[in-house]
Parts: sequence; C-alpha cells; structure tokens
Amino acid sequence: MGFKEGLKKRTETIEGIIREYAPEETGLYKNVCRAMNYSLMAGGKRLRPMLMQETWRLFGGKEEKLLQPFMAAIEMIHTYSLIHDDLPALDNDDYRRGKKTSHKVFGEAMAILAGDGLLNYAFETACKAMDAVEDEKQLAKVAQALRVLAVKPGLAGMLGGQVVDVEMEGKPIGKDVLDFIHERKTSALIECSMMIGAILAGAGGEEVTGIEQAARKIGLAFQIQDDILDVTSSLEVLGKPVYSDEKNEKTTYVSLMGIEAAAGQVEKLSNDALSIIRGLCDAGGYANPFLEELLKALIHRKK
Amino acid sequence: MGFKEGLKKRTETIEGIIREYAPEETGLYKNVCRAMNYSLMAGGKRLRPMLMQETWRLFGGKEEKLLQPFMAAIEMIHTYSLIHDDLPALDNDDYRRGKKTSHKVFGEAMAILAGDGLLNYAFETACKAMDAVEDEKQLAKVAQALRVLAVKPGLAGMLGGQVVDVEMEGKPIGKDVLDFIHERKTSALIECSMMIGAILAGAGGEEVTGIEQAARKIGLAFQIQDDILDVTSSLEVLGKPVYSDEKNEKTTYVSLMGIEAAAGQVEKLSNDALSIIRGLCDAGGYANPFLEELLKALIHRKK
Repeated sequence: MGFKEGLKKRTETIEGIIREYAPEETGLYKNVCRAMNYSLMAGGKRLRPMLMQETWRLFGGKEEKLLQPFMAAIEMIHTYSLIHDDLPALDNDDYRRGKKTSHKVFGEAMAILAGDGLLNYAFETACKAMDAVEDEKQLAKVAQALRVLAVKPGLAGMLGGQVVDVEMEGKPIGKDVLDFIHERKTSALIECSMMIGAILAGAGGEEVTGIEQAARKIGLAFQIQDDILDVTSSLEVLGKPVYSDEKNEKTTYVSLMGIEAAAGQVEKLSNDALSIIRGLCDAGGYANPFLEELLKALIHRKK
Repeated sequence: MGFKEGLKKRTETIEGIIREYAPEETGLYKNVCRAMNYSLMAGGKRLRPMLMQETWRLFGGKEEKLLQPFMAAIEMIHTYSLIHDDLPALDNDDYRRGKKTSHKVFGEAMAILAGDGLLNYAFETACKAMDAVEDEKQLAKVAQALRVLAVKPGLAGMLGGQVVDVEMEGKPIGKDVLDFIHERKTSALIECSMMIGAILAGAGGEEVTGIEQAARKIGLAFQIQDDILDVTSSLEVLGKPVYSDEKNEKTTYVSLMGIEAAAGQVEKLSNDALSIIRGLCDAGGYANPFLEELLKALIHRKK
C-alpha cells in the first residue's frame, strides 16, 4: 500500500473511531450535541489521533480498546480549542475547515457551551478506557495517559499558549515569545498525542521523554507551515481565509523571518524530530515506516 | 464546638486547600491565572468541597491526600461554570458573590479562557491525587473518582442542564423541565461531590448509589432556596442582584408554585435526603452529626 492510500485508510478508520465516541444527539440537550458534532465531525487532517496511533504502533501497542477512547478525546480537545478560538471575543473567525464557524451557525452562547462540552466530554470519553482495563498494569497505563491528557492541553500547555497569543495580538514580539506561544498552542497537543500513544503501548520513561521532544519539534514545524500557507494558499485550497494573520495583526514566523527562512525551519525541525525518533527505533528495535513518511509529508503539505 | 463554629473552621480549612491547589500566578500566562484565581478565591460557601469532605468522613475516610485534590477540583469546575454562565452571550451578569464578574474585570476573551482554564485545571488537579497513591486499591478508587468527576459536570449532568436552561429562557416551561434543568445544573455537582467523597472513603456500590440519590434531592432543595432568595433577599445580603430571574424572564420554582409551596418543597426534599443518609448510617454503623446539621442549615440559609 502506498503512502497516500495508507493515509486515506487510516483517516477513514479514525473518522469511524471519532464517530463511535461522539455524543448521541438525543434528549433535551440534543442541540449542544449537534453543535459539538458539527465541529467534531467537520473533517480535518485528524493528525493528532493519527500521531497517537502511529506512535502506539511504533512501540508495539496491542490493546486497541485502551487507545481508541484517547484518540477520540484528543480530537475533542483540539476541536473545543478551535470553537473557542473562533469566537467573536477572540479571533472572530467566520470560517473553519471550509465551513461556517460554530458561533455563526449556532449562536455565541451555544458555541461557548459546545466548546465546554467537548473539553469536558474528552475526559469522560478517555475514562471509558477504564471499561477495557483487565489488570492493574493496564489501569496504571490508563491513569498515566489521563494525566498527560489533563496537563498538556492546560495552563502550562495549549491554553497557556493561547492566552499569550491573545494578549500579544497587535504587539511586536520576537522569536522567543513566538516559540513560547507555539510550543504550547500547537506543540502541546502533538506532545500529548504522541506521549499517550507511547504510554499506552508500554514505552518506558526515557522513550516517552524522547517522544515528547520529537513531538515539540513536529508541532513547531506544523505551525510554521501553517503560517506559510496563510500567505501562499487560497480559501478554496485551505478551507479558511488566507491572510487572516495579517488581518489580525499577528506576528508569525513568516512576518518575522520571511517565507524562505521559515520553510528552512520547517525542514530543520522535521529532520531533528525524525533523528530523535530514529534514535529511539535503533535503541529499542522499533520501526514504523508510515510514521516517518507522515512526518515528511507534513513539510510538503499544501493545506 | 457549636455548628456555626464548626462551619467556620471547616470553611477556613477548605479555603486553605483550594489556595494550595490554585494555579501560581507566574510566567507569561500569569494574567489568565489571575483571572482564574479572582473567581476561584472569591469566597462563596464552599458547599461542594464541604459536602465531599463530610461524606468522606461519614464513611470513615482516612487518606486525606487522595481527597484534597478532588475538593479543590470540584470548586474549580463550579467556578468555571459560573464564569461562563455570567458571560454577555449567556446570563450577562455584572456581579457574582458581591464582586464584578470575570468578563467585567478581565474582558470577555480572558473570561472565556479563564473558564476553560479552570475546567481543564480541575482534571489536572484531581490527577495530582495519583501522587499520593500507595497501592492498587487506592489507584482504583482515584480512577473511579476521576470518572465521576468527568461525567457529572458534563453533557448528562451540569452542562446538559445549563444548555436546556439557556434554550428555555423566556419560554413557558413546566415543573418537569424545571426539574430536568436543576437535577443537572445544580444537583449534578452535589452528586459528584458526595459520590467522590464516598468512593474515596471506600464506600460500596450501593452506598454510593444511595448518596447519589440523597445528593440529587439536596441539590434541588438548594436550587429552590436560591430561587426563593432571589425574590426575598437583597443585593447587600446575597452579594448578587435580586430579581435577576424575573429580569431574565426565567421560570423558577417560585414563579411556578409560589414562595410558600416552594419553601415546602425545600423542606420535603431535605427531609427525604436526610432519611436516605440516616438509612445508610443505620445499615453501616456510620455517623456524621455535622453533615446532618449542614443539610438542615441549607433550608434556613439567607444567602
């Protein structure tokens, strides 16, 4: 199977897993479930659950029923952050993934509650892994994974980055603050995904730390590529308005260092991440050629 | 020690526990920590952590280090829900607990992020109980408590009630829908608190279910009393504007059944809850006179 075919098959499998764990649209509060699912099922690359699953495969993971709730949970957390980021009081965006944003469709109150609902439901969903736990060793792995799921999207992670991003809007910032923002706003969830994959597969402490470091670089590379696409792509290809960073007076890697140097950074960070992962593979006798191809594809993505 | 003195001492202890687990106001994202702590440390009755701790005492709980992170966590979840409820897109309230609401002090964007931060940090904080876990039995209790913490504030619990409350604003509703809203919006967190207290103390499945049923009634009684105070108290005593329900065209127990019948409901629900708890005490040889007095005091509270 070629890479593109493998990617398509995996994305479809992940869509199925997310759908399985998505909230049912029933009961008096079905409207918030609809709003949650509108954003959760809006497609996207499903990069976070994919990286979680491929890291889990890299370390020889076997208990799929422990993993799947976490794959759905990380996408719920990612989606909650997008819904709240898009709100009028924050980025005030009308489009996301080629569709109207949540507050444009459901109103602001429901969009706030749908975001809250997804963040909360992520933990509820991840806790479902407890149903598949068969012994104390598995419970310990699930508990460790839950903790990573609670820490990385939070204050010291994604949320902290988002706060600084909002506060710095329209102000001139240097590369150090920009790195601070994106190591949290973007990398933290990639770290979260890959660390949980490693933990649930039974990877050791040093392996989990190695994966965390590689994931940080992958997240930064992904974000810089996002900044590049914001000025080189189009609404049709990207599914969201281009030049939105410029419109919002945001400092980006492109505005800071230019397109060429930014592209060089993407290449360097990706290669560094690959080196770390190859080192772990060599030391532990692991292999996952698809994961390597996936990381390379991130460099050349057009949307 | 009299009840009032006991209540004061317990409230102070709980304040100390919440302060211990509150986020440190440092780093580039310290402003969101300030906003989180502004609301988290704004006083209030601390009823939820108190009910958690007293239920834990009722069942002879011993490992305080497993309990305390959950006591702080439940107050973080309660506080997040208040911050988001008060937002302009929802209830649009300017005062809460005698202080300006979060968005009036920090702006709307920061209030949204502070709410998100508290919800997320609640799970991060509860996970700290894992540090105190000494054996597999304790880990199993913490895992079970985490699951209750994830389920009760969510879709089928508090958030679901909040959604229906928002959607029904200004529409005529009957007692069944009002019960549906408040069994979730208010009771769910009381259930969550008391169930976690019971679980961490090592209570059995039937005991936890009994506590859940009692807590549902306590929550409803508490909410009806809230509705009564909204029309019988004052801004000075209550710390928030009175007649806010009428202003927001909200159906309440008072608008539905009148003050006297509503007060009768508070009394009946509280007595029913006490009966359930007494039944558990008689069956298991438990006792917690303070918990009983606390529940009785809820009936006669003036704020």
